[in-house]
Amino acid sequence: MEPNTVFGQEKFTESESVEISNILSQSLPEEEASFRPGPGGTTVTYLESWRAINLANKIFKFNGWSSSIKELSPDFIEEIIVPGGVKYKVGVTAIVRVTLKDGTYQEDVGYGCSDNPSKGTAIENAKKEAVSDARKRTLRLFGDGLGNSLYDKEANKQLGITLKNAKKNAAKPPAKPNTSTTPT
Amino acid sequence: MEPNTVFGQEKFTESESVEISNILSQSLPEEEASFRPGPGGTTVTYLESWRAINLANKIFKFNGWSSSIKELSPDFIEEIIVPGGVKYKVGVTAIVRVTLKDGTYQEDVGYGCSDNPSKGTAIENAKKEAVSDARKRTLRLFGDGLGNSLYDKEANKQLGITLKNAKKNAAKPPAKPNTSTTPT
Amino acid sequence: MEPNTVFGQEKFTESESVEISNILSQSLPEEEASFRPGPGGTTVTYLESWRAINLANKIFKFNGWSSSIKELSPDFIEEIIVPGGVKYKVGVTAIVRVTLKDGTYQEDVGYGCSDNPSKGTAIENAKKEAVSDARKRTLRLFGDGLGNSLYDKEANKQLGITLKNAKKNAAKPPAKPNTSTTPT
Amino acid sequence: MEPNTVFGQEKFTESESVEISNILSQSLPEEEASFRPGPGGTTVTYLESWRAINLANKIFKFNGWSSSIKELSPDFIEEIIVPGGVKYKVGVTAIVRVTLKDGTYQEDVGYGCSDNPSKGTAIENAKKEAVSDARKRTLRLFGDGLGNSLYDKEANKQLGITLKNAKKNAAKPPAKPNTSTTPT
Amino acid sequence: MEPNTVFGQEKFTESESVEISNILSQSLPEEEASFRPGPGGTTVTYLESWRAINLANKIFKFNGWSSSIKELSPDFIEEIIVPGGVKYKVGVTAIVRVTLKDGTYQEDVGYGCSDNPSKGTAIENAKKEAVSDARKRTLRLFGDGLGNSLYDKEANKQLGITLKNAKKNAAKPPAKPNTSTTPT
Amino acid sequence: MEPNTVFGQEKFTESESVEISNILSQSLPEEEASFRPGPGGTTVTYLESWRAINLANKIFKFNGWSSSIKELSPDFIEEIIVPGGVKYKVGVTAIVRVTLKDGTYQEDVGYGCSDNPSKGTAIENAKKEAVSDARKRTLRLFGDGLGNSLYDKEANKQLGITLKNAKKNAAKPPAKPNTSTTPT
Amino acid sequence: MEPNTVFGQEKFTESESVEISNILSQSLPEEEASFRPGPGGTTVTYLESWRAINLANKIFKFNGWSSSIKELSPDFIEEIIVPGGVKYKVGVTAIVRVTLKDGTYQEDVGYGCSDNPSKGTAIENAKKEAVSDARKRTLRLFGDGLGNSLYDKEANKQLGITLKNAKKNAAKPPAKPNTSTTPT
Amino acid sequence: MEPNTVFGQEKFTESESVEISNILSQSLPEEEASFRPGPGGTTVTYLESWRAINLANKIFKFNGWSSSIKELSPDFIEEIIVPGGVKYKVGVTAIVRVTLKDGTYQEDVGYGCSDNPSKGTAIENAKKEAVSDARKRTLRLFGDGLGNSLYDKEANKQLGITLKNAKKNAAKPPAKPNTSTTPT
Amino acid sequence: MEPNTVFGQEKFTESESVEISNILSQSLPEEEASFRPGPGGTTVTYLESWRAINLANKIFKFNGWSSSIKELSPDFIEEIIVPGGVKYKVGVTAIVRVTLKDGTYQEDVGYGCSDNPSKGTAIENAKKEAVSDARKRTLRLFGDGLGNSLYDKEANKQLGITLKNAKKNAAKPPAKPNTSTTPT
Amino acid sequence: MEPNTVFGQEKFTESESVEISNILSQSLPEEEASFRPGPGGTTVTYLESWRAINLANKIFKFNGWSSSIKELSPDFIEEIIVPGGVKYKVGVTAIVRVTLKDGTYQEDVGYGCSDNPSKGTAIENAKKEAVSDARKRTLRLFGDGLGNSLYDKEANKQLGITLKNAKKNAAKPPAKPNTSTTPT
Amino acid sequence: MEPNTVFGQEKFTESESVEISNILSQSLPEEEASFRPGPGGTTVTYLESWRAINLANKIFKFNGWSSSIKELSPDFIEEIIVPGGVKYKVGVTAIVRVTLKDGTYQEDVGYGCSDNPSKGTAIENAKKEAVSDARKRTLRLFGDGLGNSLYDKEANKQLGITLKNAKKNAAKPPAKPNTSTTPT
Repeated sequence: MEPNTVFGQEKFTESESVEISNILSQSLPEEEASFRPGPGGTTVTYLESWRAINLANKIFKFNGWSSSIKELSPDFIEEIIVPGGVKYKVGVTAIVRVTLKDGTYQEDVGYGCSDNPSKGTAIENAKKEAVSDARKRTLRLFGDGLGNSLYDKEANKQLGITLKNAKKNAAKPPAKPNTSTTPT
Repeated sequence: MEPNTVFGQEKFTESESVEISNILSQSLPEEEASFRPGPGGTTVTYLESWRAINLANKIFKFNGWSSSIKELSPDFIEEIIVPGGVKYKVGVTAIVRVTLKDGTYQEDVGYGCSDNPSKGTAIENAKKEAVSDARKRTLRLFGDGLGNSLYDKEANKQLGITLKNAKKNAAKPPAKPNTSTTPT
Repeated sequence: MEPNTVFGQEKFTESESVEISNILSQSLPEEEASFRPGPGGTTVTYLESWRAINLANKIFKFNGWSSSIKELSPDFIEEIIVPGGVKYKVGVTAIVRVTLKDGTYQEDVGYGCSDNPSKGTAIENAKKEAVSDARKRTLRLFGDGLGNSLYDKEANKQLGITLKNAKKNAAKPPAKPNTSTTPT
Repeated sequence: MEPNTVFGQEKFTESESVEISNILSQSLPEEEASFRPGPGGTTVTYLESWRAINLANKIFKFNGWSSSIKELSPDFIEEIIVPGGVKYKVGVTAIVRVTLKDGTYQEDVGYGCSDNPSKGTAIENAKKEAVSDARKRTLRLFGDGLGNSLYDKEANKQLGITLKNAKKNAAKPPAKPNTSTTPT
Repeated sequence: MEPNTVFGQEKFTESESVEISNILSQSLPEEEASFRPGPGGTTVTYLESWRAINLANKIFKFNGWSSSIKELSPDFIEEIIVPGGVKYKVGVTAIVRVTLKDGTYQEDVGYGCSDNPSKGTAIENAKKEAVSDARKRTLRLFGDGLGNSLYDKEANKQLGITLKNAKKNAAKPPAKPNTSTTPT
Repeated sequence: MEPNTVFGQEKFTESESVEISNILSQSLPEEEASFRPGPGGTTVTYLESWRAINLANKIFKFNGWSSSIKELSPDFIEEIIVPGGVKYKVGVTAIVRVTLKDGTYQEDVGYGCSDNPSKGTAIENAKKEAVSDARKRTLRLFGDGLGNSLYDKEANKQLGITLKNAKKNAAKPPAKPNTSTTPT
Repeated sequence: MEPNTVFGQEKFTESESVEISNILSQSLPEEEASFRPGPGGTTVTYLESWRAINLANKIFKFNGWSSSIKELSPDFIEEIIVPGGVKYKVGVTAIVRVTLKDGTYQEDVGYGCSDNPSKGTAIENAKKEAVSDARKRTLRLFGDGLGNSLYDKEANKQLGITLKNAKKNAAKPPAKPNTSTTPT
Repeated sequence: MEPNTVFGQEKFTESESVEISNILSQSLPEEEASFRPGPGGTTVTYLESWRAINLANKIFKFNGWSSSIKELSPDFIEEIIVPGGVKYKVGVTAIVRVTLKDGTYQEDVGYGCSDNPSKGTAIENAKKEAVSDARKRTLRLFGDGLGNSLYDKEANKQLGITLKNAKKNAAKPPAKPNTSTTPT
Repeated sequence: MEPNTVFGQEKFTESESVEISNILSQSLPEEEASFRPGPGGTTVTYLESWRAINLANKIFKFNGWSSSIKELSPDFIEEIIVPGGVKYKVGVTAIVRVTLKDGTYQEDVGYGCSDNPSKGTAIENAKKEAVSDARKRTLRLFGDGLGNSLYDKEANKQLGITLKNAKKNAAKPPAKPNTSTTPT
Repeated sequence: MEPNTVFGQEKFTESESVEISNILSQSLPEEEASFRPGPGGTTVTYLESWRAINLANKIFKFNGWSSSIKELSPDFIEEIIVPGGVKYKVGVTAIVRVTLKDGTYQEDVGYGCSDNPSKGTAIENAKKEAVSDARKRTLRLFGDGLGNSLYDKEANKQLGITLKNAKKNAAKPPAKPNTSTTPT
Repeated sequence: MEPNTVFGQEKFTESESVEISNILSQSLPEEEASFRPGPGGTTVTYLESWRAINLANKIFKFNGWSSSIKELSPDFIEEIIVPGGVKYKVGVTAIVRVTLKDGTYQEDVGYGCSDNPSKGTAIENAKKEAVSDARKRTLRLFGDGLGNSLYDKEANKQLGITLKNAKKNAAKPPAKPNTSTTPT
């Protein structure tokens, strides 16, 4: 048994509860969403990992939410012969649990795929992506304001034609953006 | 032993209880349902995963329900030789538990099948679909208002001939919709 | 040790207790029962899974009962060569526990058989059917009003000659109905 | 440690105790018993599973008793070649515990045998029969009124010559009746 | 840790204690005993399983004693070739614990042997006999009134020459009587 | 953790304590002892198992002592070819714990050897003898009045020449008497 | 966790404590000791197992001490070919814990060696001797009055020349006496 | 269960909470960030491990935060033949949990890659880097002020053109800086 | 969790504490020490096992200290061919914990070596020596008065020249004395 | 669960907290640092293990901090053939946890490499170095005053040119200094 | 969970705390240190094991500190062929935890190497040395007064030139002194 802590035993006050419900029941603000080209000329709307963390800290406060990694395991690590050498293909599954200060929790699965001539880099990228993806997917279970609204394909089309945003993000790399030039 | 938390020890007030019972005992509102062609020219009525999450947040509030993944395991990951290469067929089982703030819980099984030239994508899609499916199936155990009414085949036929909805969804992809152009 | 929750520690009030006893001690209302042809020209009377869930929610309220999956395991997954390809035969056992808000519990076993050219579909159908079957069988242990009366073969014959119902259901598929055109 | 619940901690009141003792100390009422031909021209007196459940609900109330499956395991699953194909012979052991609202418990073993051209059906029937048999055998440990009196061979002979009942049941199938045209 | 229950924490009242002690310290009443021919022309005195259960319910009340199966395991399951086919020989060990309402407990071992052309029947009979035997042997540890007196060979001889009883039971089958024409 | 029970938490009263001490500190009454020929023309003095149980019930009362089987395991089960067939030799070890109502406990080891043409009978006899032996040996640890005095070889010689008893028991079978014509 | 019991939580009273300390700090009374020839014409002084038990019951009272077997395991069971057949050599280690009513405990190791044409007898003797030896060795840890004084070789020589005792015991068997003509 | 400690049960005071929230919601001060050349001529902005520790100590106080290593395991340790000898390539995964004084916690994964002619040095560097990386990544989950802002690629570009800083760090080694000339 | 007992929760009184400290801080009295020739003509000073037990009982009282065996495992059991047969060499490690009545504890390792033509005797001697050695070594951790002073080689030389003692012990066997003509 | 102790439940007083924070937030005093030549003519600044222990005792007091070894495992133990014999190369990983009196804790990994003709010495040195390294690295997580400042490479350069210190340490051995002529 | 004891829950009084801090913060008194020649003509300063125990008993009192063995495992036991026979080389790792009366604890690793023609002696010496070494190393973590000061190489040189001591110890054996002519 884990010892009891203040966290998990803090009830949301009435006003906190109302305020958070309000934010969570509204669609993710347009400026928080990102876009990348999807299959068949479509546009995929998504939420960057760091933004999801930021939103959680804004909505629940720094000591209003916790997260833990319940599982992190590679499904495959394969060496592929390519012209001039080898590369590594890695697929990793993560399950993250997010808990609020009153003990409410959600869990979801995330996935990271990676393809790199360096074995270490391939594993690193896939594992970090898997955890970030799982954390982000779990957070959105708390409501639209944390990203659940992005799963509404009709609404996404609406967003997609908001040209201003679409252009601003046009130059972004098409893959999951969390593993490249940001710090590791 | 997990430590005690506010969540799990919060009794529903009398009025909350009545209100939630009312919503849950009514059939899922027509605008929440989606449709796709089923086998033999039939129409399958279903509830999209993000809508089930949204409904749970509306009915129980963001800190009125929790969910956890009790099991997530592949039944098979198979490499199939197809013209011009290989593809991967993956089948994954998930069991999800949904708990309410007074400790009431339900569990059900979900399943994800996937078929993709990329091994990673095949596993990712199957795992995410399995969890989403299990969560959705578990939520409907709380009542018609969370999707149980969709299992009433007679009622579904009634819904199926409501042309307005049927058309609106006509263009949707026929497979389980949770794994394509939505964010991962 | 699981933490203590309100659920499990809620005593049924005197009037709740009387009311629930009344419902449970009466035979399942005729309109809740379904019929399908059995072996040798007989008619099998049964309760559809979604109806059992609905009845439980009506009788115990949404936060008056919980269910969990104690076991879900395939007995066999077999590949069979058939003209033009293969098909898969799957048999799955489930054990479900249903608990009431005062901690009363019942457990029973359920079974799912499936036969499908797609391996994934075969496993999915068998697993979902097994859990639904186990949940339904467990619920009927609480009384006639939750389906136990359907196991009275004499009474079933009585029901069987109620032509109105028999016809209404005549067109239903003969196998267990829970796995076809309903949502997954 | 399982959390404490109301169930298990409810003392029988004095009058409940007297009333239940009275019922349990009397032989099973003749109309509850069933009959089938036994080996050597004898008649076997038995209690159908659904009747045992019903009696338990009548005597202890729906929230006065609980049951759980402590063990459910096949002793053998054998494929037998028969003219025109194969059939499956299955033998399954179950142990069931029945607990009363004050924590009193009994356990007994049950057995299910099955013989069927379909492997799945053979396992399903044997497992369900084993659990039903174990539950019924355990319930009778509480007294004659729950079936213990049927084990008194002298008394059974007395019952056996009560022609009215014997005839009424004459047409029943000779094997354990729990696995045929009743719902699964 | 099992949760605390009323059962196990109920002290015997002074008068209960005296009354039960009186019954248990007297030899088993002659009408409760059964007889069968033993090796070498002797007569074996024994207590039928259903009578032991009945006595326990009379002496301790239905909620004054509990029993559980601590072990149930086959020592051997052997296929023997006999003229015209095969038969199965099975030997099974059971350990049963009987607990009284104040937490007093006893344990003993029981054994079941069986010999049958049907493998399933052989196992079923041996397992059921083993549990019945163990329960009966454990109950007699509480005193003569629950069968311990039958182990006094001198006293048995006395009983053996009580002709009235001996005749009444003369027609009984010589083997352990618990596995034949009684219900399973 | 086992739940707390009345048993184990009942202090012996001052007068109980004195009375029990008195009985236990006196040698086993001569009429409780049995005799059989030992190796080399000696006479072995012993206590029959049913008498040990009876004494425990007299001294501690039916709810003043408990016993449990901590271990029951065969050391060997051997098939021996003998003229005209086979026989089985079995050796079994048991460890029994006896606990008094205030929680005082003792443990000792017992042994059962058996030699029988029937494998099942051989195992049954050895296991039952082992448990009886262990229970008896453990009980004598509480004092002379429960059999410890029989281990005093000097005192045994004294008893041995008390001709009246020696004769009375002369006809008894020479082996451990617990496994023959008494009930199983 | 074992449940709390009176035993283990009973403080020795001041006068008990003084009295027991007095007895334990004095050498074992000469009349309790036994003698057997040792290697090289020496005399080994020892305490018979039944006397150690008796002393413990005298000093601590029947409910003032408990003992349990922490380990009982054979080191070897060997078949040796001897003229005219085989014999078995067995060596067994036991660890016993003795606990006083206030929770004070000691543990020590004991050993049993045996050499017998019957495998069962060889194992039985070695196991029983090992436990008796371990119990006796553990008891002496509480003080001289429970046998620790026998380990003082100087004092033993003193005792050894007390001719009266030496003669009285002269006829005793030279091996460990616990396994021969005493009851098993 | 870990024992309860003051840490984990210390609620943040209102003013602490406000102050910490303020710091955490502001971007990492420019002087805390470091820069190194990234792929394709880009500049990677990152936070040195010792700075992250320092920031945590400043923001939460030395006894306001704790960290533990949940997992530390090599993914591969490979010997590579290079001109003139061998070198070792090592990849290590770490998961770190950071907990605040009120029990709030976060977890993230870190990675360490190393390439060294000495096997020991290669493993040492990779393990230390993995833990440092995981600790740093976990800390940034508490907010921008602990490094989350560095994951905002737009903002990073802004920082990147702040020439003063860029130059100051220009001479730094391009790899992860934590494993070279700093103390081990 | 072990249940709480008086032992472990008894604080030493101020005067007990002072008195015990005094005894323990003084060197072991010369009359308690024993001597045997060591390698190279030296004299080894040691404390006999029974004396260490006696000292512990004197210093802490019979219910002021407890001891348990944490580990007892052979490192090797080897059969060696010697002229005229075989002998066995055995080496055994023991770890003993000694606990005082206020819960203070110490642990140390002991060792037993043995060399005997009888396998059983070799193991017995080595195991008993290992436990005695470990108990003695652990006891001396409490202070000089329990033998720690014997590890001061300077002081030992002083003792060694005290001729009176040296002579008195001159005839003692040179090996560890605990395994020869003392009782087992 | 470990029992509760004073340690872990002692809150730092306000003044202790301020004082400790002050010390920890200042750079390690120059006189505590040591220097050794690093790769490429650089100077490595480090903290000797015994100094880190001393600092912890000064800052937190002897009973204000605890440390435990969570993991200690060799990564490799290799025998290398060298001119004139063999030598052993050993690499060991340690994880240490340091806990403060209010329960605050930190963990970090340490490493020990060793290269020695004696296998035992090689393992000993590597294991001791690993634990010392891990303890030191963990302590510095509490702040600059315990060594975190040494990881600031800019600051280290400053220190490095403080000639007085550099010279004083010039003669020190270049490897990790903890394993040579200091006591083991 | 271990039961709570007085030990672990005794707070140091203010004056105890001050006094102990004073002793621990001073260097080990010169008369407690020992010396032996180190590699290359150096002198190794060390603390004999029995002195460390004595110091602990002086500083913390006999019931103010406890120690336990967390790990004791051989790294290698090797047989080496030498002229005229074989010898054994053994290397053993020990981890010891020392706990103070308020629950403060430290842990460190110790090592024992041994080289002996007798296998048993080699293992014995290495195991005992490992535990003594680990206990001593752990104790010094509490401060200079328990030996930490000996790790200060500068200070050691100072001590080394104190000729009086150096000479007094000149004749000591050069290896670890704990395994020779002192008692085992």
